[in-house]
Amino acid sequence: MRAVDIIIKKRDGGTLGREEIGFFVTGVTDGTLPDYQASALLMAILVRGMSTEETAWLTDAMVHSGERVDLSGIPGAKVDKHSTGGVGDKTSLILAPLAAACGLVVPMMSGRGLGHTGGTLDKLEAIPGFRVQLSLEEMKAALVAVGCAMIGQTAQIAPADKILYALRDVTGTVESIPLISASIMSKKIAEGIDALVLDVKTGSGAFMKTEADSRRLAESLVSIGNASGVRTEAIITAMDVPLGRAVGNALEVIECFEVLKGRGPADLTDVSVELTARMLVLGGVASDRAGAAQQVRKAIASGEGLERFRRIIERQGGDPRVADDYARLPSAPERHAITAARSGFVTRLDAESVGRASVSLGAGRDRVADAVDPAVGIIIKATVGDAVREGDPILELHYRDPAKLQQAIGRASEAIGIGDTRPAARPLIVGEVH
Amino acid sequence: MRAVDIIIKKRDGGTLGREEIGFFVTGVTDGTLPDYQASALLMAILVRGMSTEETAWLTDAMVHSGERVDLSGIPGAKVDKHSTGGVGDKTSLILAPLAAACGLVVPMMSGRGLGHTGGTLDKLEAIPGFRVQLSLEEMKAALVAVGCAMIGQTAQIAPADKILYALRDVTGTVESIPLISASIMSKKIAEGIDALVLDVKTGSGAFMKTEADSRRLAESLVSIGNASGVRTEAIITAMDVPLGRAVGNALEVIECFEVLKGRGPADLTDVSVELTARMLVLGGVASDRAGAAQQVRKAIASGEGLERFRRIIERQGGDPRVADDYARLPSAPERHAITAARSGFVTRLDAESVGRASVSLGAGRDRVADAVDPAVGIIIKATVGDAVREGDPILELHYRDPAKLQQAIGRASEAIGIGDTRPAARPLIVGEVH
Repeated sequence: MRAVDIIIKKRDGGTLGREEIGFFVTGVTDGTLPDYQASALLMAILVRGMSTEETAWLTDAMVHSGERVDLSGIPGAKVDKHSTGGVGDKTSLILAPLAAACGLVVPMMSGRGLGHTGGTLDKLEAIPGFRVQLSLEEMKAALVAVGCAMIGQTAQIAPADKILYALRDVTGTVESIPLISASIMSKKIAEGIDALVLDVKTGSGAFMKTEADSRRLAESLVSIGNASGVRTEAIITAMDVPLGRAVGNALEVIECFEVLKGRGPADLTDVSVELTARMLVLGGVASDRAGAAQQVRKAIASGEGLERFRRIIERQGGDPRVADDYARLPSAPERHAITAARSGFVTRLDAESVGRASVSLGAGRDRVADAVDPAVGIIIKATVGDAVREGDPILELHYRDPAKLQQAIGRASEAIGIGDTRPAARPLIVGEVH
Repeated sequence: MRAVDIIIKKRDGGTLGREEIGFFVTGVTDGTLPDYQASALLMAILVRGMSTEETAWLTDAMVHSGERVDLSGIPGAKVDKHSTGGVGDKTSLILAPLAAACGLVVPMMSGRGLGHTGGTLDKLEAIPGFRVQLSLEEMKAALVAVGCAMIGQTAQIAPADKILYALRDVTGTVESIPLISASIMSKKIAEGIDALVLDVKTGSGAFMKTEADSRRLAESLVSIGNASGVRTEAIITAMDVPLGRAVGNALEVIECFEVLKGRGPADLTDVSVELTARMLVLGGVASDRAGAAQQVRKAIASGEGLERFRRIIERQGGDPRVADDYARLPSAPERHAITAARSGFVTRLDAESVGRASVSLGAGRDRVADAVDPAVGIIIKATVGDAVREGDPILELHYRDPAKLQQAIGRASEAIGIGDTRPAARPLIVGEVH
């Protein structure tokens, strides 16, 4: 088998065989396939596409480039959630403790923020002492002890994906549904889970800008998961406006505690409950979604979810007292309010612009190697649909560096639209895929 | 400027600007652009294409990756020919001395054979002592002394092409008319010529299998040449059957001497005269094609062409006595005839299969690093249209190694078709592009 023949076949719109895809992934993993051949094939795949079967084979080959974790020794249904990424999207920190409190085992491997979207690991590391780099053995022990572990991807998990992801980033081959699907699903399948709920974001602040593309991605992900023996379903949620009222790592952690205390913003609470309820049904600890949602809301009302989060934090070396004393979290020394230029209704609060403003403040990163400031970020004082008077604060920027503030003000100001009429309310959950 | 943005632009079907193309070629040449980005862009170009303007910019950037040779100090019109490659295509060795004998200056830089097609340098090196690696200064001195130099590409000529060509070969990005055009024309323009005649081959033994593709390539090449101030025209010639009766390096050299002695095969003589006549007109030493053709045929009849070839050979260190004593050329120790399996007419003599059989014998190479045996090859005893009786020889294989012979017999046998009716004669020159 020659790499160049595989490239030519896909270039000319052909369908690759299982062996050809395996040859490619093995070569990428062990370094025998030069990266210039890998990138040519990635471009051919991006342009010509891949069938459902090819995508499943690619995913499977990527899973087998490393280890598929065996969690069968741990009692209970192992269920995870994955979001395609958005601004203010912090549901993982809410639903993992809630799902664990309701009886699931949640082995959650997450990533870091890149570009305008945040990452779960960065948020967790805003908690003093919290260690995300657990070994597989430590992860398993945590699952037994507290029903949940929230960690970074270990080196054993889909190593082909690490190489391909880095290559795609610099060769213009990111925006391919088959490649995105295989990247996401190979990591999730390798975690050793029984079931998976996906939150596919759609809109200006999402990776997929249109509902049609988001649905295509959701369908691809769900089909791969189910074909690999992982019960998988997806919801499609709007990401035109940031989720919740906080953007930035420590600020988002606080908002998660607020949701777990029953006083978080409605949009964030609703999506978190919906996702957790679906996890419970897929994991078999609830028989229907309505009953499951009730169970989740009870775990909030009773404080069990919050208590479970304290135990998870403690188990991973963090200071659980932050849940009750937010002053123990890093906070930025300065505040700057961006106010309404006129009276009216907020008609637009563009998620991507808010995300980019937050990155400007230091809350996120443009390049993988950049450091993140856990303290800085943005609090949304008025969101889409709210009435404002001229001079009212809309965004409160929490900053450290005045130079960074100036850049963030520009980006944040672009996010805001004010009009004369209140915009129609739009549903947050716009679709689902089984 | 970021390479990834250029890749994405072309990937999405956009038109690249002159600066973007320059950035790419400069990066490839000085090594600052990683080859995985270059190959992703090459694949995007192959799939999305390039406008005439983009192709011209690419060619120009590749010319300027090295030196454009200055031949203005040498009196006379500097004219070259380029063929896109075929089987038995040895016209360069015939037309270069003829054109020089008729008053042109011919600075000919050629390549080596690869795959089923032969290369001018390999043929010249079949002549004992012939040196193809002249420096630019040696080349200029030869042009002044004998009006012609036939050499390999020097390192100063379009270095970007060397890198890109090697990369295209292993990344499935060879078959792109803009990339092929820029590769050919950058080298020819950098030679410092005033005019260029192209022989674009078409058919089963050519790189372009259809006349439509060959015409598109010819049009692309001619437009780039003229835009760069090199008067350029092209003929399109059939390459379904080998050109002439000899395939293999020393055997082809002998056939060239035969043509220059006025007793070569008609097809090879006609194409050589046609190409030379066009060179004379483009170079301004003849006013019309018919008169030019007469002038060329006179140079054959008078022996001036042959005499000029002797002087070129001597100038480049070769033994000019080979022209009159073929025994001074390498020859293979053994012969094997492939005969007609039945009586009838030869209806097919597939150029690619004959070329591959010749490569099997050792006359060509599958990989750039392979060595070539100058002595081995194939003599065509009966070609398309000839009547044969069962047992008549059709191909005579000149071989050294019996194991290689076995492989060659298989390939050569596949080349031959015999039928009951004489096939209609087909023209050799099927089109022209100005």
